[in-house]
Amino acid sequence: MRIALLGGTGDIGQGLALRWAYDTDHEVIIGSRDPEKARTKATEYETELDSLGVSRSINGFANGMAAERGDMVVLAVPPFHIRDTIEAVADRLDDVDVLVTPAVGMDRDETGFHYKPPNVGSVSELVADTAPDGVPVVGAFHNLSADRLADLSLDLDQDTLLVGDDDDAKELVGRLAEEIDGLRALDAGGIGNSAEVESMTPLLINLALENEGMHDVGVRFE
Amino acid sequence: MRIALLGGTGDIGQGLALRWAYDTDHEVIIGSRDPEKARTKATEYETELDSLGVSRSINGFANGMAAERGDMVVLAVPPFHIRDTIEAVADRLDDVDVLVTPAVGMDRDETGFHYKPPNVGSVSELVADTAPDGVPVVGAFHNLSADRLADLSLDLDQDTLLVGDDDDAKELVGRLAEEIDGLRALDAGGIGNSAEVESMTPLLINLALENEGMHDVGVRFE
Repeated sequence: MRIALLGGTGDIGQGLALRWAYDTDHEVIIGSRDPEKARTKATEYETELDSLGVSRSINGFANGMAAERGDMVVLAVPPFHIRDTIEAVADRLDDVDVLVTPAVGMDRDETGFHYKPPNVGSVSELVADTAPDGVPVVGAFHNLSADRLADLSLDLDQDTLLVGDDDDAKELVGRLAEEIDGLRALDAGGIGNSAEVESMTPLLINLALENEGMHDVGVRFE
Repeated sequence: MRIALLGGTGDIGQGLALRWAYDTDHEVIIGSRDPEKARTKATEYETELDSLGVSRSINGFANGMAAERGDMVVLAVPPFHIRDTIEAVADRLDDVDVLVTPAVGMDRDETGFHYKPPNVGSVSELVADTAPDGVPVVGAFHNLSADRLADLSLDLDQDTLLVGDDDDAKELVGRLAEEIDGLRALDAGGIGNSAEVESMTPLLINLALENEGMHDVGVRFE
């Protein structure tokens, strides 16, 4: 399986790239609008993994090329770049098994962070609306701390929640999620349930801000 | 400390009443619009506790009388009864230490349950707007399964999240929450953060519906 992380140079992209490269044998591909930046970051990830005794080849490309090569394509870009990223790579997504969205729209005021979805209801719904027909969309990895993912010395022991209307695609993402050590995937239902999933991200940030020792807090449902 | 549960005949009220009566020495008072129903339910709770070897006196009253007697008053009523319940007992709340709201506005469609807050932004904010001046309001206990609370044979091992603008009141509610065995209270910030806390309730119900063995699922932040 080839996993392409568009925006894989950013924080959540880095965390997922390192975990999949460290814990699995899947091919990890880094995408960026700037292919040079993608290659530089890919080399950084290789160097970090090498320092942990894991020799992996990670390639960097422009987002379009990364999308073309990926079987699973993860949109690890900020919510305000979702639409233009999908439009820029739309003609490369024909053979993709699943398009995955971990992004969450938020703003901040004096009280804390707040869920601010796009007008269609959620980022996941925006992705589903914008993706080419026939490309299954799954929301996942919203509630994982990027720093905790990226620090391979830390155990995760966390849940991630999946939303999507295509059961096969959701099952595939769940399987790839659970190949990351310490990560459990739970089904939160269809894309129509995505706002409730995405809105947990500002809640987790608020808990991290308000409680001692909860930097990088995650969640377990039990 | 006297804990008055307005609407204490309903499911979340029953769960909290039984846990506080079983795990602590605080006086538990059941309120209802119908005082006869309150007395009947209070007697039922006494009988259940007695069957577990715990002899407790629990009294039932009309909501106004219960509110008057309570130091901490919990609004264990459905969200659409919040406003009229507060208005009905407003002149009995002078000496109350804190008014606690566990209610969440939700609706359901073919996909699952969805967060539907009142127009002011959240039930917690509605309570804060409606409560008499000077009565501190804390949102808490939103994400606990009523069935799991009410079954005293089950360990909780769950977190509850607190929101409120009065730190003393929030600390008091946190202390009383943690006197329930297996319950940990976390600070989620001011009332302005309450929508993110309340919206976890439909998420938990969706997880319970979509995943085997997750009936009565709760949450731990780690």
